[in-house]
Parts: sequence; structure tokens; C-alpha cells
Amino acid sequence: MDLNTEYDIAIVGGGPAGLSAAIYAARGGLKTVIFEKALIGGQIVVTADVENYPGFEENMSGFDIAEKMQKQAEKFNAEIKLEEVKAIGTEGLCKVVETSNGLYRVKSVILATGAHPRKLAVPGEEKFTGRGVSYCATCDGALYRNKIVAVVGGGDSAIEEAIFLTKFARKVYIIHRRSKLRAVKIVQERAFKNEKIEFILDSVVQAIEGGDFIEKLMLYNKKTEKISELPVHGLFIYVGIIPNSELLESRVEFDEQGFIETDNTMHTDIPGVYAAGDVTHKVLRQVVTASSDGATAAFSAEKWIEENKENFPKQA
Amino acid sequence: MDLNTEYDIAIVGGGPAGLSAAIYAARGGLKTVIFEKALIGGQIVVTADVENYPGFEENMSGFDIAEKMQKQAEKFNAEIKLEEVKAIGTEGLCKVVETSNGLYRVKSVILATGAHPRKLAVPGEEKFTGRGVSYCATCDGALYRNKIVAVVGGGDSAIEEAIFLTKFARKVYIIHRRSKLRAVKIVQERAFKNEKIEFILDSVVQAIEGGDFIEKLMLYNKKTEKISELPVHGLFIYVGIIPNSELLESRVEFDEQGFIETDNTMHTDIPGVYAAGDVTHKVLRQVVTASSDGATAAFSAEKWIEENKENFPKQA
Repeated sequence: MDLNTEYDIAIVGGGPAGLSAAIYAARGGLKTVIFEKALIGGQIVVTADVENYPGFEENMSGFDIAEKMQKQAEKFNAEIKLEEVKAIGTEGLCKVVETSNGLYRVKSVILATGAHPRKLAVPGEEKFTGRGVSYCATCDGALYRNKIVAVVGGGDSAIEEAIFLTKFARKVYIIHRRSKLRAVKIVQERAFKNEKIEFILDSVVQAIEGGDFIEKLMLYNKKTEKISELPVHGLFIYVGIIPNSELLESRVEFDEQGFIETDNTMHTDIPGVYAAGDVTHKVLRQVVTASSDGATAAFSAEKWIEENKENFPKQA
Repeated sequence: MDLNTEYDIAIVGGGPAGLSAAIYAARGGLKTVIFEKALIGGQIVVTADVENYPGFEENMSGFDIAEKMQKQAEKFNAEIKLEEVKAIGTEGLCKVVETSNGLYRVKSVILATGAHPRKLAVPGEEKFTGRGVSYCATCDGALYRNKIVAVVGGGDSAIEEAIFLTKFARKVYIIHRRSKLRAVKIVQERAFKNEKIEFILDSVVQAIEGGDFIEKLMLYNKKTEKISELPVHGLFIYVGIIPNSELLESRVEFDEQGFIETDNTMHTDIPGVYAAGDVTHKVLRQVVTASSDGATAAFSAEKWIEENKENFPKQA
């Protein structure tokens, strides 16, 4: 295969970590490309209100924040290509990135591929996805005006999205397998005060049933050991995230859940390969922590390229 | 001494790290106070254009970013007190914070005290500070309209501020002790293209001389070993930063330069005491990395308080 245009840095993933890395790398004078297979912004584009990204005192949608970051990266001449990265190889000091569109030779790679929602893995989940089952209240909430919906999960995302859904639905059940929520207090309190929200605790969804569309959930109460039916028009699943770390699988160190381990420079085990954002092992997954990772990864990559500049082939 | 109002979290320092910590802590439902001895915003208020904080695609002043973060923190009911913290003690699990205004008992402390400019420590520096010697081009640049100024340093700050000074001064010398600059390429290139800027490399300032005001610099060229005089109206010093870490000195682990060592939760060696931003040991000191630290520190503090809530005295 022929090699396409060459870059100093290829960033895989166009969420906050990747966009921030591009802002820093491109501003640092490096020829920079972001490969994004779907939507610029990554997971945040499904968030209606981001209220804790420092500096935006008025709430912004995740989509708007992503758009601002994209413009900023492009202002410094970072290129964005809507291509899916299939594989990352090495060729001496260089990296070869294979995308849906061909091969690129680059000096450094920053993996900012993020994470994706965990599935419940219960009967009916796949069948009813897009027919009542959703992983994105922001995307699909408006379809449930005056309907009854349920949210599965007890963390920040689950509770925040349940509150969001009360804008549309007439009733929102929150189903959580424990007796206590994990979400931060202020979010819990808002949910407790919301009259449209009803909690179903100590319970798990055993099956999702219906005809063409979802009609009801089969619930199992772990304390009473009773099974019950819950009629719903929609089910929103927020039970955790799984890192999109396949591209480096078997070549770098991972934590138990498959998140990539980096040092504090965001370096992985492969020289010149960095990771940033939700795909990495970290304490707190937020827009600001992902953006910070991206900035640090780009800074480290820039230093590494500078240190090794005599050793790259002339064309690369 | 009487104890003042009690808080869950006291944040020492009102720069981006402290403000971000306040946004997260207060939004998390904790009673939160920031103590700031001088200016909200910390070091960034002296930056005219922040162009790489992800999400602001149009340049903003550091002052404006700080103001936005402050409003956001106050929106979630964080309190800001313009008091200087004199000492931090422990009282069982609680911390006692002594400020210029009295004592506060809190559950957790986040140290976000930042850093301050390193001095040249040459004869005349102290005498002419405020009389031609400055550490803040944004603050004092406008005083040098059509004058001749020099900047000492070769990093990003030095070169960026030199470029900024060309808005006012008719001539800007950059004095750097090495033959190459440390600043990122894009910034270097801008400086090289700027006709008002002249570089004096391999050189150090030996003394600052004048009458009531600065008149000239005594320079020593390390390569030629020659001494020369440089007439200037102003001197801006950008030769590095020193952490403001005295409050925990001798009680937590430091790196060689005195920056506080934390783990990846931003925890110091003292239970319930966290550090964030420029005062900590880190790879890259930027608004976004400080803000990320602040968010993580607040998240960790919140978890620690929750885990220990049965063990705090009822009043605290």
C-alpha cells in the first residue's frame, strides 16, 4: 500500500483529550492530524449540560464545547480526518497508522480513543436497542414526551440523565442494584426532590420484553428475592464504561478493567506512543481531566520528537 | 482563639487549581471556602492572552478566565475569602486553618498555592523593582511605550511576554544564558519574525544599574567572556518559578525544587490534605492541567470525607 501524507503526530480520537492534544501539538508547530471514526467530541456530545468544565460559568452542551475545541485546534492548523484507525504499527522509530483510507507514517501517536457504555447483557437488550433501549438520554430523551421510562444505574451519569429525562417523560424510574447511589450528593439531592423520579433500589433488570417496541422490564429484587414487571416505554442504560483500548491490546500495560496505564507524562510502554483521556487508567473521568491529559501527552510527544529528531528518516 | 465558621473543605489559593477544586467540591455538596491572600486568578491574571485553554477558541485574558471560574464556583455556593493562610494544623481528623482573620476548623484542605517568579538575585534587582524591574509584562508593559526594554529568559513565558511588550516598547531585547531558546517553536518563530525583538544569547545579567530608575544592564557573554553595557528603561525577569509550598514544608514529600509530591489522587502525605496545580510536582504547568488537578483533588477529598464521616466530631 502507498503511504499517504506524513505527519509529526497522529491523534486517534476526536474527544476532549484528542482535541486538546491537537491544540497543544499544532500550536507547538507540529504537523498534526486527528483521526475520528464517528463524531468529533466523543462521548461528551451526548451530554446536554456540562456545568463543571472550569471556565464556562454558564452551562454548555457537550456538543458546543467539542465544537469550540475543534475550531481552536483547526486555528492552529491541526487537520481532522473522519477515518477509522484499524491498526498501529512501528517502523523503526516511526509509527505506521492504518486507517479506513490507507496508511500514514507518523513520528508519534497519541491514543485518545475514549470509552463506550457497558451493556447490561440481558435478553432483549440488543433486540430493543433503537426500539426503546438507549445509552444516550440527550440523543433520545425527546422521543419520550409524556411517556414512562426507566434508567438503570446509580452513578453520576445515571442520575443526571434521569433528571434530564424528567423534562420529557411523565415518570422516570431509577433502577439500581444497590441500596445506595454512587452519584455525588448534589445530584442525588436533586433527584430525590424531583417528583417525577421514583427509585427502585436493590433491583436488577433480568429481561427486556415487548413486541416491535419495548413494553416492560422484568425486575428482580435482591433483598426480597421477588420478581416483578415494570411497564415502560423506554430504558436508558448507564452502568459504566469500557475503554476503547483494542488498538494497543497486548502491547502496552493495562489495569484490571483494560484501561491503559501511562506514566505521568502520558507515555505508554511503546516509545513515542502516548495515551490520554478516558482510555487511560485514572481517578476522575471528566472533560477537564481528559483535556489535561491531552495537553500533557502532546507536550511529551513534542519533547520526544525533538529529542529524537536526528534519528527519524529524512522524509518522515 | 475562637473558631470561625466551619467548612468541609478549605482551599488555599484562588488560581485555576483552587477555583476548579471549588467548582467540583461545592457542586459535590460540600461547604467550601477558598482563601486567597491577593488576587483571584493567581499567576494567570498577568497573562494577556491565553490561547491554549481548551474550549476558548478565541483568545481570552487570564483575568477573564479567572473571573469566569470564580463566578462558576460562586454559582455552586463556594465562598471566597480574601484572607492569608498563616498555618495549617491538624486536630484529630480535622484540620485547623489559621488565617489573617482567625481560625477555621475544616475536614479537608486542598493546597493550591501556586508558585512565584524566580529572582535573578543580582545587584540592583531589589532596588529597582517597581522602578524599572518587573516580573509581569501584562501589569507594567504599558508603562514602556516607545521605550527600550529587556526580557531575561528563554522559556515560553519569557518569549511570549517579549512579543507582548513589542506592543508598547520600541525595542525589546531578549537576554538568554544559552545559545538556544526553550520556548515552543511557534512562539520562537513569532519572536524571530518580530522586527522589534533582538536576541542577546549566551549572556547573563550581572548587575542592574541606574539612579532613581533603572538605566542600564551589565551583561556578561559566556562565550566571548566579554562584559558590556546595555541601556534600558525596563527589565522583565522570566527565569522560572518557585513553588509556594511553605505551608506544608517539613511535613509532606517534596521534589528537588520544593514542589509537593502527590499520588494520582492529588493526595499528600497527610490524611485529608491534597495539593493541586503549580505547587505540585508535574510535567506541564498550564491552566488546563491545574484545573484538572483541582477537580481531581476535590473529588478525592469528597470521597475521603464521605469515607470518614462517622469519625469527625459532630460540630465539624
